[in-house]
Amino acid sequence: MSTTDDAEATRDPDERARERLIELAAEFYDQFAGGQIPEMTLPTRTKSNIEYDEESGVWVYGDRTSTRSANSVRGARKLLKAAYAIEFLARQLDQGRSSTLRELYYLSESWDAEDAHFNDQSESDKLIEDLEIVTGVTREDFHMRPEESGATLMGPLRLREQTRRGEREIHCQEDVGEGGYQIPNNPDTIEFLDHDVEFVLCVETGGMRDRLVENGFDEEHGTLVVHLKGQPARATRRITKRLHDELDLPVVVFTDGDPWSYRIFGSVAYGSIKSAHLSEYLATPEARFVGIQPSDIVEYELPTDPLSDSDVNALESELEDPRFQTDYWEEQIELQLDIGKKAEQQALASRGLDFVTEEYLPARLDEMGVS
Amino acid sequence: MSTTDDAEATRDPDERARERLIELAAEFYDQFAGGQIPEMTLPTRTKSNIEYDEESGVWVYGDRTSTRSANSVRGARKLLKAAYAIEFLARQLDQGRSSTLRELYYLSESWDAEDAHFNDQSESDKLIEDLEIVTGVTREDFHMRPEESGATLMGPLRLREQTRRGEREIHCQEDVGEGGYQIPNNPDTIEFLDHDVEFVLCVETGGMRDRLVENGFDEEHGTLVVHLKGQPARATRRITKRLHDELDLPVVVFTDGDPWSYRIFGSVAYGSIKSAHLSEYLATPEARFVGIQPSDIVEYELPTDPLSDSDVNALESELEDPRFQTDYWEEQIELQLDIGKKAEQQALASRGLDFVTEEYLPARLDEMGVS
Repeated sequence: MSTTDDAEATRDPDERARERLIELAAEFYDQFAGGQIPEMTLPTRTKSNIEYDEESGVWVYGDRTSTRSANSVRGARKLLKAAYAIEFLARQLDQGRSSTLRELYYLSESWDAEDAHFNDQSESDKLIEDLEIVTGVTREDFHMRPEESGATLMGPLRLREQTRRGEREIHCQEDVGEGGYQIPNNPDTIEFLDHDVEFVLCVETGGMRDRLVENGFDEEHGTLVVHLKGQPARATRRITKRLHDELDLPVVVFTDGDPWSYRIFGSVAYGSIKSAHLSEYLATPEARFVGIQPSDIVEYELPTDPLSDSDVNALESELEDPRFQTDYWEEQIELQLDIGKKAEQQALASRGLDFVTEEYLPARLDEMGVS
Repeated sequence: MSTTDDAEATRDPDERARERLIELAAEFYDQFAGGQIPEMTLPTRTKSNIEYDEESGVWVYGDRTSTRSANSVRGARKLLKAAYAIEFLARQLDQGRSSTLRELYYLSESWDAEDAHFNDQSESDKLIEDLEIVTGVTREDFHMRPEESGATLMGPLRLREQTRRGEREIHCQEDVGEGGYQIPNNPDTIEFLDHDVEFVLCVETGGMRDRLVENGFDEEHGTLVVHLKGQPARATRRITKRLHDELDLPVVVFTDGDPWSYRIFGSVAYGSIKSAHLSEYLATPEARFVGIQPSDIVEYELPTDPLSDSDVNALESELEDPRFQTDYWEEQIELQLDIGKKAEQQALASRGLDFVTEEYLPARLDEMGVS
């Protein structure tokens, strides 16, 4: 989460994260010392308390709050677990260590207070999200890693990654194999050095990512190809946002032509309900959708599959979704419901292996004013 | 598939693959020319025709064969599709191109004979496997890519990858970020240059892979950490086998402690039924299992989950599986059925984040005589 305080921003993020955690623990302490029942106040994390912020173009939490109070056994246990987790995180930051969300769940078994052990991983995952919200520090800055891994980059970008083993300077075309540069779990350890990138192209499937690289699309068009690997990991969304914000690069998203893929676009562009507290850190509202558009299915006579019932339901719920309430999306989604079909990115291969890089993408990007 | 003919082995694999395909097409032609109904003979690819080869320690096809003959419309259509696919593959090799399995399926829509179009991707996938078997050339040498991607390497190994953009020399610790070196789709484009590797450690989960790297296990023990990412892709199994065969390195496999993970070990070590024709190319029969062993669950009192009904069924079917018919596996599987519990790799974190690298692995590897 970006802090707006410039003085803070220049400080060591580990130290800042640690201080915020200790401040939170100190609040509990002060409440106790003052004879109050300790409590912690959070925005209510339900769908009904999620708002689309017109100005920033991302999802954020609304005004409703919930209070975790130690005035019940259940509430007291939650604060106890929070206190133990804070102690663990503060020590981890102090020692320059990190751990996975799953390790935290298992680690709690070693805590002396049995009431502080987590019942399952969803409980510890949710606590970490709560701590993110209350402290304004991201999970990455707590040094908590996910299981999901970031995807890969390929394109004319030179970067410096701060690893535990020292700095690595890597050019994402010249210094990597065909597999590309593997995005680390915390992409804020990356500094962008120099580049010849014209635009960032986020691609849903590995097959299409490989096609673009084989056809040299990144070299010919100054494209930084970001492989989303389906629903993108936080690390992938974060680096995409940083590429846009710091290098002032246009971002376009290329997926299959079905409602689930439009949601992948939505999570890159507008953020997700699950991580609405992180939208400013993860979402790139300026990102634009390349396709596959329902109108492409018609225009290029692509091989299709029929829409299933759940596809139709998902499209109908997208029509109600404020993120998709634009003339463009209404037209495309209504067209898709009308034709009753969906198509994959790789269906473009029915017109030859070079069609996507020689015809489809150049035409679409030109139309969008991107390249 | 390794050819045993030394003269052939030194030739350009693209040219060899192309020749084998054309030889196969020429057979059809000769059959036609000789007034015969064309046909193609293959080993029967059913479970009942799979044999465990005691000598090589891998699964191979048995003696039963099936014949695809053009004496029925269905059979004729199959050979027609094979002929079109052979033409496509031969042209692809000639042009130094490659494509994904899914692209091949879509590409068939552009073939002029409508009877040659594939009905679904499983049909084209199966045809490629048939061609692998008949020609003795691997899919990789046909330049057919999967959707699944290879995983990553981290450790003291310097390699050279032949990419479409020229050669890249990469040290898998010094020249990569924390994410490691991304294995390309065809790892036979890699040449091993030099190394300080003592043994290869294949790891099932990303969380454990990250733990080993964070704790510097690869640096301290001369370990090349191969991330399997669950059930390993062909590329991951292939490079593991090459590391063993070419560099004479011990290979050990570290997974969760449940029947599905034992199958992951099995696919690294013995090959899978689906790709029995490739066992010699993909399997590493000398690979050994580190854990999590059922006996570790007991010894270290790891946090567990109860075995589900499908876990129990899978364990019982492993007891019947020739790959697991050793004293070691029988003892471990019977113990697991007895305690009725399973545990994940990361459950070791219940004894602290360093337990796995400071105690568990050193003790296990010592016991196994590996390090």
